[in-house]
Amino acid sequence: MENSSQFIQPNEPGTQLKNETGDSRDKISIMLYNTEKLEEKIIRISEVSEYKNLIDQNEVDQLWINLDNNYDESVVEAICDIFHIHSLVKEDIIQKGQRPKVDDYENYVFIVAKMIYYKERDLILEQLSFIVGERYLITFGDEEGDVFDRIRNHLRKEGSLIRREGVDFLLYSLINSLTEGYFNVLETMGEIIDLIEEKVLISKTNEEQKEIRKIKKDLLFIHKFSWPLREVTSWLAREESVVFNKSTKMFFDDLSSQLIQVIDTTDTYRELLSGLIEISLSNISYRLNEVMKVLTIISTIFMPLSFIAGVYGMNFKFMPELNTRYGYLITWLVMVVIAAFMVYYFKKKKWF
Amino acid sequence: MENSSQFIQPNEPGTQLKNETGDSRDKISIMLYNTEKLEEKIIRISEVSEYKNLIDQNEVDQLWINLDNNYDESVVEAICDIFHIHSLVKEDIIQKGQRPKVDDYENYVFIVAKMIYYKERDLILEQLSFIVGERYLITFGDEEGDVFDRIRNHLRKEGSLIRREGVDFLLYSLINSLTEGYFNVLETMGEIIDLIEEKVLISKTNEEQKEIRKIKKDLLFIHKFSWPLREVTSWLAREESVVFNKSTKMFFDDLSSQLIQVIDTTDTYRELLSGLIEISLSNISYRLNEVMKVLTIISTIFMPLSFIAGVYGMNFKFMPELNTRYGYLITWLVMVVIAAFMVYYFKKKKWF
Amino acid sequence: MENSSQFIQPNEPGTQLKNETGDSRDKISIMLYNTEKLEEKIIRISEVSEYKNLIDQNEVDQLWINLDNNYDESVVEAICDIFHIHSLVKEDIIQKGQRPKVDDYENYVFIVAKMIYYKERDLILEQLSFIVGERYLITFGDEEGDVFDRIRNHLRKEGSLIRREGVDFLLYSLINSLTEGYFNVLETMGEIIDLIEEKVLISKTNEEQKEIRKIKKDLLFIHKFSWPLREVTSWLAREESVVFNKSTKMFFDDLSSQLIQVIDTTDTYRELLSGLIEISLSNISYRLNEVMKVLTIISTIFMPLSFIAGVYGMNFKFMPELNTRYGYLITWLVMVVIAAFMVYYFKKKKWF
Amino acid sequence: MENSSQFIQPNEPGTQLKNETGDSRDKISIMLYNTEKLEEKIIRISEVSEYKNLIDQNEVDQLWINLDNNYDESVVEAICDIFHIHSLVKEDIIQKGQRPKVDDYENYVFIVAKMIYYKERDLILEQLSFIVGERYLITFGDEEGDVFDRIRNHLRKEGSLIRREGVDFLLYSLINSLTEGYFNVLETMGEIIDLIEEKVLISKTNEEQKEIRKIKKDLLFIHKFSWPLREVTSWLAREESVVFNKSTKMFFDDLSSQLIQVIDTTDTYRELLSGLIEISLSNISYRLNEVMKVLTIISTIFMPLSFIAGVYGMNFKFMPELNTRYGYLITWLVMVVIAAFMVYYFKKKKWF
Amino acid sequence: MENSSQFIQPNEPGTQLKNETGDSRDKISIMLYNTEKLEEKIIRISEVSEYKNLIDQNEVDQLWINLDNNYDESVVEAICDIFHIHSLVKEDIIQKGQRPKVDDYENYVFIVAKMIYYKERDLILEQLSFIVGERYLITFGDEEGDVFDRIRNHLRKEGSLIRREGVDFLLYSLINSLTEGYFNVLETMGEIIDLIEEKVLISKTNEEQKEIRKIKKDLLFIHKFSWPLREVTSWLAREESVVFNKSTKMFFDDLSSQLIQVIDTTDTYRELLSGLIEISLSNISYRLNEVMKVLTIISTIFMPLSFIAGVYGMNFKFMPELNTRYGYLITWLVMVVIAAFMVYYFKKKKWF
Repeated sequence: MENSSQFIQPNEPGTQLKNETGDSRDKISIMLYNTEKLEEKIIRISEVSEYKNLIDQNEVDQLWINLDNNYDESVVEAICDIFHIHSLVKEDIIQKGQRPKVDDYENYVFIVAKMIYYKERDLILEQLSFIVGERYLITFGDEEGDVFDRIRNHLRKEGSLIRREGVDFLLYSLINSLTEGYFNVLETMGEIIDLIEEKVLISKTNEEQKEIRKIKKDLLFIHKFSWPLREVTSWLAREESVVFNKSTKMFFDDLSSQLIQVIDTTDTYRELLSGLIEISLSNISYRLNEVMKVLTIISTIFMPLSFIAGVYGMNFKFMPELNTRYGYLITWLVMVVIAAFMVYYFKKKKWF
Repeated sequence: MENSSQFIQPNEPGTQLKNETGDSRDKISIMLYNTEKLEEKIIRISEVSEYKNLIDQNEVDQLWINLDNNYDESVVEAICDIFHIHSLVKEDIIQKGQRPKVDDYENYVFIVAKMIYYKERDLILEQLSFIVGERYLITFGDEEGDVFDRIRNHLRKEGSLIRREGVDFLLYSLINSLTEGYFNVLETMGEIIDLIEEKVLISKTNEEQKEIRKIKKDLLFIHKFSWPLREVTSWLAREESVVFNKSTKMFFDDLSSQLIQVIDTTDTYRELLSGLIEISLSNISYRLNEVMKVLTIISTIFMPLSFIAGVYGMNFKFMPELNTRYGYLITWLVMVVIAAFMVYYFKKKKWF
Repeated sequence: MENSSQFIQPNEPGTQLKNETGDSRDKISIMLYNTEKLEEKIIRISEVSEYKNLIDQNEVDQLWINLDNNYDESVVEAICDIFHIHSLVKEDIIQKGQRPKVDDYENYVFIVAKMIYYKERDLILEQLSFIVGERYLITFGDEEGDVFDRIRNHLRKEGSLIRREGVDFLLYSLINSLTEGYFNVLETMGEIIDLIEEKVLISKTNEEQKEIRKIKKDLLFIHKFSWPLREVTSWLAREESVVFNKSTKMFFDDLSSQLIQVIDTTDTYRELLSGLIEISLSNISYRLNEVMKVLTIISTIFMPLSFIAGVYGMNFKFMPELNTRYGYLITWLVMVVIAAFMVYYFKKKKWF
Repeated sequence: MENSSQFIQPNEPGTQLKNETGDSRDKISIMLYNTEKLEEKIIRISEVSEYKNLIDQNEVDQLWINLDNNYDESVVEAICDIFHIHSLVKEDIIQKGQRPKVDDYENYVFIVAKMIYYKERDLILEQLSFIVGERYLITFGDEEGDVFDRIRNHLRKEGSLIRREGVDFLLYSLINSLTEGYFNVLETMGEIIDLIEEKVLISKTNEEQKEIRKIKKDLLFIHKFSWPLREVTSWLAREESVVFNKSTKMFFDDLSSQLIQVIDTTDTYRELLSGLIEISLSNISYRLNEVMKVLTIISTIFMPLSFIAGVYGMNFKFMPELNTRYGYLITWLVMVVIAAFMVYYFKKKKWF
Repeated sequence: MENSSQFIQPNEPGTQLKNETGDSRDKISIMLYNTEKLEEKIIRISEVSEYKNLIDQNEVDQLWINLDNNYDESVVEAICDIFHIHSLVKEDIIQKGQRPKVDDYENYVFIVAKMIYYKERDLILEQLSFIVGERYLITFGDEEGDVFDRIRNHLRKEGSLIRREGVDFLLYSLINSLTEGYFNVLETMGEIIDLIEEKVLISKTNEEQKEIRKIKKDLLFIHKFSWPLREVTSWLAREESVVFNKSTKMFFDDLSSQLIQVIDTTDTYRELLSGLIEISLSNISYRLNEVMKVLTIISTIFMPLSFIAGVYGMNFKFMPELNTRYGYLITWLVMVVIAAFMVYYFKKKKWF
């Protein structure tokens, strides 16, 4: 269930269904690659330091270590110790309610980002953490696995750009496919907004306002996480760091301008939705007006007529009209004239 | 049809109606010019590199290559390869949902801009891309052709300023006529808003709110694309680049201040429209008020009268008034007095 | 007539009524002055270059050339050619829909400003352009002439500050009296807003909203033109230019802080007006409430009474009450009690 | 009376009641002090220059000259001439509608500030001007005298901090007690807002909106004058000037952060008041709703009953029910059942 | 009780219940520690200077002096005199209504912060002041003691990070646990907002608006104090000061980004609450609409029927229908047809 408190710390403990067997929990997926070769393995935590030595010795090798969110804190800490990662970073990886950010620690850069996607009309967000050092990238997150699998396939293709470049380009590829997720969500939202708009324009209830509220809440989410993500990419495009090649910077710059587009679009959507609420409210007022007109027309026509009927229903002894030959007929005529005049009056006033 | 999702990627594949014959697809319009001579041709993609060599050798010649949006991706890629354009640029040209931007790649500058115009009350926007290098300009877009044709005619005039200057001035001329498009759209909008205002002030429905919503959506568009376009022109006026002469910078500065005027005007229009919605809503409330007054006046006058008639319609045996000579007359008098008092009371309260 | 489209290009061709005689059209008012002497003349366009030579030779002379908005474009162009003015400047002078701005061209500075004043409750705005060079000032605009005439009189006074200083101080004096125009307009507006407020507080219609809308539109105008004008004056107070003395800068700084006051005041006024609209809307709602109460009181009192009268108007054979001696009286009593209770109930509920 | 136009130039000529005797008008209160001695006098304008010479010769003496707002322009001008003050400063002192500001003129600094206080629920604001030079401070304003008198008493105390420091600290003390005035006004406002809130929550009218409007207007004032005053103090804390000691800067920095608190509080109050208006409007709507329910309940119960009574009041010859023994009783039963059902229905719908 | 005026100076004198015995008032809790040893004591004010000398001589010792808010002003002043603290700092400590801020005085840094927590649905805020010098930290505040006790326990653990680092890290730990308080409050609020949302969606009154108002007021508080607190931490992370180690800066940077999260969340909550008010208002309007429909349906059905009954209740001598055999039956039929048509009509119009 979606609730406001998730804006702070949606720190639900990872569901450890996938890793039910005890020993699979400390197995870690790694990819060791350079332009020529590619090694893909599931290793134990104890073997990680061997691979660290490998890349330290061989200046061509690039290492990608991937842990999903279900790993024990102890595994995260073990990994971090091997790569001499600051304790603040460990905390940030384990705590899920982080805002996207980038922290520069001389020898490595730590990045937090949020992945978003729709799952049966519910907006799901997932925290991804990245540690990029010289020739190694450690990623945390991606429970579903779709986003990273795509990049993995790219890596497997020999001669692909991603194989020729370092881990900084790998990082770009990952954040890039994460950004595409934002666009997909916005596209779905655009369609939902169009549907709501069509409904609002012909609606007779205020049901749509609840749908609008839901979308608005989702937009708040996206805005909340795309804004700092843009700061992250723009930092990556600008700042000097040991870890990043100059050629990769341009790619991050491109990413940064794509994220501005995401933010712009959320702003536009919010204005569209505010406009829809305005129209919805104005529709309610307008229909109230219509209802009142019907009531007023009915009352204004029948009240005088009923009054006349009432008058001649009185039991006075001396009411000369009652005894005339055409009294009844004339009364009917008078009533019809009054009714006709009323109808004419309202027609002129354009009430119906 | 206009829809919200176009705010992200209005990436409709170009309708290739114009180029139905297979071989016309790889023919490219070029203009090679300097102060003295002008060569205008439709060439094949394979011939482009010859022209590149020409301008590389002759320091006076300027080359304008134009492709509209219907060209194959392969043609775009071929052109880019000849001029050694970065792969990110290729992607940006092919993908239509770009935000206006400028990217500086040492030897050339890449610019994305949006052209807007009204086509039967629908706001159409079209992506234009520009690659400006030393003595060459490659343009992508302009399906309709009107905007570029005007500049083409200027170029054909011998001795014109545009012939004497380099491709940077040509670029200015193109963006300038694109900016004029923004002004034309805003002028049309201004007239539409005036029409809507006149309607709103006398309107009895809330129909105008839908029109206002449409204009508001269009304004969101214009704001969305004029803001970054101003950033582009202000960058061109400010930044140092191999490609631009100092004298051209002033022209881009002028463009930049014109675009501020565009943005100002969209802001003003949005405030005007918000004011109109306020008035429209207040009109609805006010009319509801008027309707209620009519109802209340009618009810307040006839309810007591009907009550009196009802009383003397009762069938009690002992009702002394019924048998008096002037009972009926007095009853009528009482009724008239009550009605008159009511009318007087409402007149005094200024209800009608 | 005031319309939205004037926000873009209120480019109405000057009405050439004043200059009906053909030859008066190329006559130009000039003032040549220094601390000691003052020469005031109407000359032909062909004579202008003589005067330019005069000030070029004599380092003390200051030249003020004034053209109003009715001059032919050709005259503007002739003047500009004599003083070697950039073609962009010419265009900006001729095109009336400019945003206030300042452009620095090495040897001269070009300034656009807007003059505003009330003419029978309509806000009129007029474009003024200034070209300030070393020892010459060319002004375009001021159809009515009042604003410039005042400065002209100052110039005629021997020993006045304006005579002792250069054309940069003359420029300051002109922009200063133009700024006073903004204050006058705001003062008038303040009085109008006070009047509207008094009306709104006792109003029974929503007529005031149209007046509020008019003032709001006018405020949008003033804000639109005072904001960039402040940028102009603050640029003049800050930037280094050949044309301006250091001592004049302080005066422009003062102007700049006056214009901040103008902008502040427009903001304050807009908040006041928004508050008035809120009150006006709340008044409408409140009055609707009052009307509904009257209706409800009337209905609630008479409906039960009429029902009782209706019951005893039924023609059943066996209705024992009808034949009792005091049936009628008791019925009346019951009715009075019910009515009294209703009145008491509404009094307690504070409905009236 | 409070009116909008005072936002521009509340330039009411000073009421000269206090200084009715002709010669008191050019008498000026001065204080000449240093750590050891204090001289307090009322002198004539002609004697001022003597005192100026005194402080020029004696590097320890500090001079405070005070003029209230009732002085003639000529006196202001005389003072300014003695101290060689720029003509722009003279104008700013005389013209009362100034925005708080600070102007740095090499040898002295000119400051305008606004004092505010409540006088029987009306917000009064008064312009104070300060000229601070080396060892002299000239103050203009403080009609009531309370604020300055407090500082005067401090000065009279031998050995007090204010006696040991220069006129820059005296200036700080004056602006500090002026700032306390802002806090006092805000505190009073806070209490008024609390009162209004209590009223709004139980109110049956929209009377409170007028009170809210008044407070909102007052807040606009305070915001308008505290914002630039903060700029003044922050300038004084930052800028280098001959006049100010480094140790005094810290005090102005403290003042600056106090004024941020003032601005924050006005913002908070404005949000609170907007919330109150929202609640007030929603109360009106809600009460309208309640009134309508009463009306609807009454109508829905009695209309069918009256209809039944009406049916049996018809005079058809052949109405079999009329002649039955229990017709009347059954009719009553039917009526009671209908009424009871209605009441049950509305109870279930929670209408009352 | 919560009131608006507390936004300025919630300067309630400390409740001195805890320290009822006269002599406990000048006893001060101190902790003297370094990596190896820890001394914890309650000392008299007169003994403080001894401890100051201790840390001045021993470069390893760190001293934490803690005073809660109940101490006499004289104690505060005594402490400040011993450590040569500026008089402005003393005032700021004693005056409780301070905005969070940081002031750099060469040898020490003065920090004001606000602690917030919920106490039975009321938001309590408490002012904490910190003076950090070289190897000493003086803290004022924390009446409840919970927050500081936690840190005290950390300190008692030998070998803990906090013992190994200087007082700057101790300061970080204190501000960190204070920041966690903000997160706790926001989490509670998130849950309250979820509850309110559920209520609003099904509510029939506008009671929830008062709850929303309360939360909104609390959010204003949090925003008011978290914003400047972030400025404090960001200053601590950035500025050079004698007092702070470079390694601690990173921790303050982390704190700063956590506080951005706090601010973001308050903004998100405020938007959520505004949306709830919108929905609440729209619900009221919508229900009014529903009520009106019921009224209109009832009136529209029964008014014509009652009219017909009224007509045949007239006492005219010559009313042929009255004497026909099936007149009564036909009248009933006509009535049923009219009622049926009305019901059909409203069904078609989807009124019920």
